[in-house]
Order: sequence, then C-alpha cells, then structure tokens
Amino acid sequence: MEDVLQIIEERKEVYLDWLVKLCRQPSIAAQNVGMEETANLVEELLQEIGAETQQVPTEGHPVVYGEIGAGEKTLSFYNHYDVQPPEPLDEWDSDPFAAEIRDGTLYARGVSDNKGNIAARLAAVDAYVRARGSLPERVKFIIEGEEEIGSPHLDDFAQANQALIDADACIWEAGYTDPQGRPEVYLGVKGILYVELTAHKANVDLHSMWAPIVPNAAWHLLRALQTLKDHQERVLIDGFYDRVAEPSASDLEALRRMPFNEEGRRTQLGLDAFINDLTGQPLLRQHLFQPTCNICGIWSGYTGEGLKTVLPHEASVKLDFRLVPDQDPHELFDRLVKHLEREGFSDVEIKLLAAEHPARTPTDHPFARLVADTAQEVYEKEPVVYPITPGTGPMYALCQQFGVPAVSIGVGNANSRNHAPNENIHLTDFYRGIAHLVTILDRFSAVEASE
Amino acid sequence: MEDVLQIIEERKEVYLDWLVKLCRQPSIAAQNVGMEETANLVEELLQEIGAETQQVPTEGHPVVYGEIGAGEKTLSFYNHYDVQPPEPLDEWDSDPFAAEIRDGTLYARGVSDNKGNIAARLAAVDAYVRARGSLPERVKFIIEGEEEIGSPHLDDFAQANQALIDADACIWEAGYTDPQGRPEVYLGVKGILYVELTAHKANVDLHSMWAPIVPNAAWHLLRALQTLKDHQERVLIDGFYDRVAEPSASDLEALRRMPFNEEGRRTQLGLDAFINDLTGQPLLRQHLFQPTCNICGIWSGYTGEGLKTVLPHEASVKLDFRLVPDQDPHELFDRLVKHLEREGFSDVEIKLLAAEHPARTPTDHPFARLVADTAQEVYEKEPVVYPITPGTGPMYALCQQFGVPAVSIGVGNANSRNHAPNENIHLTDFYRGIAHLVTILDRFSAVEASE
Repeated sequence: MEDVLQIIEERKEVYLDWLVKLCRQPSIAAQNVGMEETANLVEELLQEIGAETQQVPTEGHPVVYGEIGAGEKTLSFYNHYDVQPPEPLDEWDSDPFAAEIRDGTLYARGVSDNKGNIAARLAAVDAYVRARGSLPERVKFIIEGEEEIGSPHLDDFAQANQALIDADACIWEAGYTDPQGRPEVYLGVKGILYVELTAHKANVDLHSMWAPIVPNAAWHLLRALQTLKDHQERVLIDGFYDRVAEPSASDLEALRRMPFNEEGRRTQLGLDAFINDLTGQPLLRQHLFQPTCNICGIWSGYTGEGLKTVLPHEASVKLDFRLVPDQDPHELFDRLVKHLEREGFSDVEIKLLAAEHPARTPTDHPFARLVADTAQEVYEKEPVVYPITPGTGPMYALCQQFGVPAVSIGVGNANSRNHAPNENIHLTDFYRGIAHLVTILDRFSAVEASE
Repeated sequence: MEDVLQIIEERKEVYLDWLVKLCRQPSIAAQNVGMEETANLVEELLQEIGAETQQVPTEGHPVVYGEIGAGEKTLSFYNHYDVQPPEPLDEWDSDPFAAEIRDGTLYARGVSDNKGNIAARLAAVDAYVRARGSLPERVKFIIEGEEEIGSPHLDDFAQANQALIDADACIWEAGYTDPQGRPEVYLGVKGILYVELTAHKANVDLHSMWAPIVPNAAWHLLRALQTLKDHQERVLIDGFYDRVAEPSASDLEALRRMPFNEEGRRTQLGLDAFINDLTGQPLLRQHLFQPTCNICGIWSGYTGEGLKTVLPHEASVKLDFRLVPDQDPHELFDRLVKHLEREGFSDVEIKLLAAEHPARTPTDHPFARLVADTAQEVYEKEPVVYPITPGTGPMYALCQQFGVPAVSIGVGNANSRNHAPNENIHLTDFYRGIAHLVTILDRFSAVEASE
C-alpha cells in the first residue's frame, strides 16, 4: 500500500482543504440552514474524485449519491451532510463554522459528526484511484441530509431506490478512537420505539381542594407507567423479550476484550452504583444486549417556583425503548397499546414519535473481520470491537433489511464532543482514517462472500 | 333591627363608595403593588367608623388593626387587603381596577376576595353605631396584607400580639351564596402540607443509550411516589390517619342537608366518575372529611416538542397534602421523611414549602348556630352549612390555636370568580351581607359562652 499512502501524504493539504470547506459550510437540518449549498458542495467534491453523481430528492433534504469504480463487488459508504445546531454559541472557543485548527485539532460543528468522515472517504477513493488508476470494486456514496433530525425520509428513499443502495457491504457513518488511541469498530445499532403517553382526567386544571374526589391525571399516568417495568428494570409488557437474541460466543468474546473503565465512568457520573449493582461482564452485557424502557421526560401541572395548589387534568411522558436484535418496534408498539388496555389504561393517549429497527452484523462476519484486521494493521493497536452500540441509527432501513452487512468506523476521538460545543477531530486521526479506508478498499474485493 | 337597617338604606351610597375606593386601589401582594397605599386607606376607613387603629408591622406587609366598642364579649373580623394579580388582563371585560358596575354587579380584582367583605364589615359597624349610639360588644378588625401569598407572617403576628387577637369568636374572611341564592356558612378549613421532592441520580443528563445501566431519576421518583398512596387513594404513610377526627352526628346531619349537584358537577368537569366511583353522602364525606395526597406538578427531562433521547438525572414533584382536623402538618412532614427513608428513598431531597394546620368550629357550637340562624332570618333561605371547607386558610394560626371559634361568611356569589378574570359581587349580596352582620352584632353578646 506504500504507493497509495504516498499519494495521501502528497495530497494531505488538498484533503484538509476539502474538510475545511465542508466544515465552513453550515448545514443545520433542524433550522434549514445551508442545506442546498451543502448538498451542492458534497456533489461537487464527489465529481472532483470522478464519481457519477445525482441528488435524489426526498420529501425533505435530498440524498447526495455518488458512484465510482467497477468490479464484481460493491462497497457503500453511508454518511450525512447535515449537522446539529451549534448552540450554545458562547461555549465555543472559536466560531463553530470557522474550522479553526489549534495544536493539530480541527474544531467545527459537524467535523466529527459527520463531515470528517465524508472528507476521509472522498480522500481514500481519490488517493486509491490516483495511485492505481482505478478501484478494485464499485464504491457507492449515500450521503443523506437529515440524520440529525432522525432520518425521517431515509426509509422511503431506500425502498424507492434499492438499485442505488444495493451493495455487498457498507461502511457506516462514524467511529472514534478510545482514550488509549485504540480504534473502535461498531457492528450494529440498537433500534428505538419512542412514544408519548398522555393521561387526561377532568377537562380543566382544578384547585387542589378537589383532590379528595376528582381523579388526578398525574397519578393516573404514574400508575400506568408503574405497570411497564419492575424495580429490577425488567419490562413487563407481554412478549417484550420474545425476540431478544442471545449474544453469540464471539459476541461474548468481543465483550471480554472490550476495555471499559467501569470505576472511572461511575465516578465521573457521580453514581454510587450502576443499575442492579451490576459490574464487570454482566454490566457490559446489560449495556449492549438488553433493551430499555426509559423516561426521557415527564410533565404535568405546575412546575414553576414556589407553590401552587393545582389538580392537573393532563399529564404526559416521553418514553424511549431502545431495542436489540431482533425486536421489532412496530410489533412492540402494538404490544404496548394492548398492555395499557389490559392494565386498565385504555384512556391513556399514545403517540408514536419514532420507530427504528435494531440492526447488526455478526461479530464473526468476514466483513467485520476485514475492518477489524485492517484497523489493527493501520493503527498498530488492537481495535475495540462493539458487537452492537447502545445508540440508534437507520442501519436497518438502509442495510439490514436488504441483507447488506454494515460496520461503522471513523475519524473521531474519545473527546470529539459530538452535538456539543468545541466538536473536534485530531488531524492525525483524519489521515489515519484515510489510510484505514484505502486498506479496506484494497482488500474488500478479495473477502469471501457475506454469510 | 329596623332602625339599623334604615341607616344601611340611607347610607348605601356611602358604603358603596367605600367599596369602590378599596377596589380602585390595587394591592397585589405578589407583585408588591400598592400595598402601603391600601393599608393606609383601610386604616382611614377604620378611623372613619370611629375605630382606634394601628398598623402592626410584620416582616412583610403590615397588619391593619382596628378596635371599637366595649362590652363583656369580643367579636373579631379577619380579612385581608391584598388581592391576587389580575392577569390575564385581556380576559377581563372591564379594567380590573376600574370597579365598573354593570346590571347591579360590581366587577373588580379583589371585590369578592376580599374587599367586599372588608367594606361590608366596616358598614355594619358604622350603621349599628349610628343607629344605636354604640356597639353591644368590643369589635376587632384584623386585616392582613399577605393572604394571597400564603400568610407567611400571620402566625408570627398572632404569637406576638395575642392581646390584639384575643376574642370570644371570629367572623372569618369570606363567603358566598350558592346557585340557589342560599347563604353558605363555613365552619372550618383544611390544613396543608406542601412539599417538593427531588430525586437525583447521575450528575448530568445523559444520552438515553446509557439507560441499560445508569439509573433514571424520573423512574426513581415515580417509585418513591408509588409508595405514598394505594390505588384506592389511601395514603400509605405510617400513622397518616391517626389524628383524623370522625365527623360528628351534627356534621353528618349538615352533610345530609347540603345541596350538591353531583351529576352537574361531574358533567361540567367532563368526568366519567368521581374517585372510587363515590356518589351521594360518601362522596361528600370524602370531599370534606378526608385528607389527600395530590400531585400539583411533576417534571423531569425533556418536555418540549418532538423527541429527544435523554436520560434525566433529576426529577421533581410538588405534592400537597390537604389535612383534616386534627392532623398536624409538622408531625406528618416528619412521618413523610421517615416513610421515604424506610422505603429506600432517603436519597430523595425533601423541601417543605408550606405547612398549615386544619381548623374548625363544631357544627353545634353556639356561635356557629348564631351565624346560621341569623343567615336564615336575613336571607329568608336555609343556609348551607359546611362543617369544614376543602380549601385552606390561616384559621388555626389566628383562631383555633388560641381557642377562638371562627365562622366564615361573606358577600360573594356562586360565580364570583375569585382569582380569575371578571371577579365580581352582586350589590344585593353586599347589602344583604351588611344586614346579616348587623344582626350578628346585635345578638352576639347574648350568645352562651363558647363550649
């Protein structure tokens, strides 16, 4: 690979320039700021590396699509060009869209999530083609513009454009080095079922002197919530765990090799203990392989300063259930509705706010091994392989439902501060990420077929 | 009483003028608007009827005190010169401090709560003295300026000025006619214990992907709340009901005579049923004679539009316990603290926001009978006697702790809209209230000693 690495070295200012350009172009999907300009910029950069491009319209922001190379196999890259809002602005040490570099670290909203990875993947293809004349496989870029607002149109895009997303494997959007500089490799994402429940009682808030005889919506909601989970955090919805897959032997092996500074994390969070006093392997196993029922927010009645004696007639809660393979968010939504009916809470209104399937690639999948092995070579450190991550993304919509294995890696670091002020990547990680990608491009066509 | 009633008739414009003056002078304790001016105006009006006056300073707004007449017995009037804030202003049909009269009804912030009653009591004393030359007993006016913000200094005032408040009986601040025009007579108030509980877990809000292993403050708070009350609304704090007095035979007789349009109220509130499907006498008995544990407000995590996947590290609830005789709010606060400790929630922070004792005068007390009998005579309708009201006031601080029986009557109506836009009283109720008061003044000295 010396020839390709040599090109990366020669063109490092060009690649950095692409990254800086991307970072200086705001693209805040939630505020509809700079979206069209960024989609055009991404398309131009794809054209600059020789890709055939198109912007595929959706009901929201377009998906920028690029295709380059030919071969028996196809590798796709999933990324997104939108970023989180930069607020709170006064907590940034430099302008979030200035892309300032200090001590080898580039600070910008979106540089880690996800523009650094877009630039690195463009650079990898560019370097490979310049060194070797062509790619050994077809490469597809699928770069959406709505990831930070929940990818509301990505499933529609995928259903309508299966030919575009068809691939033998996919490199997912992002990844990080851990505090020891070890590259992390993620083989899946949890799914999510996000609902809002609202209990209604009287038709207005009342003076609390009515409490002896008029039912209180907040108590009613609390009683409904209490039926959802026991004190050991086990979800009580009938059939909730039916589809939960047991971790495989290689999953458990990956868990055992995963460094987790349990004590440090516990202390950092100011906790006396983790849930159910878990420690060690059972703690990690719970974190990655167990679904949850989490209260994201709850509100009812008077929440201001001091006292107001009110009997609230409405109470609401936002719940997210993080789902593990092979749980199905739509099936579980139906089960939740039935559960509340059966428990006597059919009067509680249920709104479905989000549903995403979990998705994962087996730990011993050849593509997973390729990504991990090449990480080991390039970083010269043992990668940390997450059989699944506890977060959520549209991996099922774009990959798993079509049988495409996906693995996530990227150029972030343990303190990249995604979604927070002073988001950053180290430039060394940027270039090492490019080197990792060209190595994958080089070996991918030789990997045995997906299982 | 013809002579006294004749004076009321002759001076009706003067008495209305006093009322209008009081209503046109804003006195919003919560916003510290016009408090000094109003205290001075009240003192001037007391002087106008011949009372010896003083303004007794407190740590907040002063208590305006007036004394007039002599005799073996002493009757006190408790009132307050402060009013609720007038907001929302755009829902008023006339300026809240214009005291506009339309169709015999005077609209103003505070006219029902409580300036109409101040003016009526001033007028009653004035008319009696003009007709008869002097009062048959000593009359004391105790008019505080902080009732609408919870009477925070009234107990201190009472403790420090026992000679001023010493009396054989007290006419409490306010009362109303019911929808049938029957005068209501209230013999007590519930107490209150108002607390804010806050559960803390991690030291920051986290991404909800941590939910499998990091405890959620909202769930913790919900579990604590769940230990406080069973599904039949019975409070589970050890000893909570120990001091709850059983209603007496005459209390139950008063309940039986109390009109309550149960069906109308239920329909008006949009309820399928009252708590525990109660109806009839058990419903009324629950309303007046049972304490509560009510959620006034609860909040945690993300409560805005749409979805945010957060694991809240704090959760708070405001609870009010309405207490019945002879429950003690301070004792129950200690019991609540112990309860939470025993149930495993000693990490839940508890703030005491208010504590007021319940207070009441027995239904068959001679003073209660005097007020009810004279109401019957003046209104020519059977009064509705509430052995206790489900609301709360500082009756214990001012009366019951010193053994002074208190009965509440006043010049409001069933639609007086206290604390709401278009607060009002009917002028007929104002003058009838004055007539009722002069009749009480006339008979009071002949009533047998308090029991």
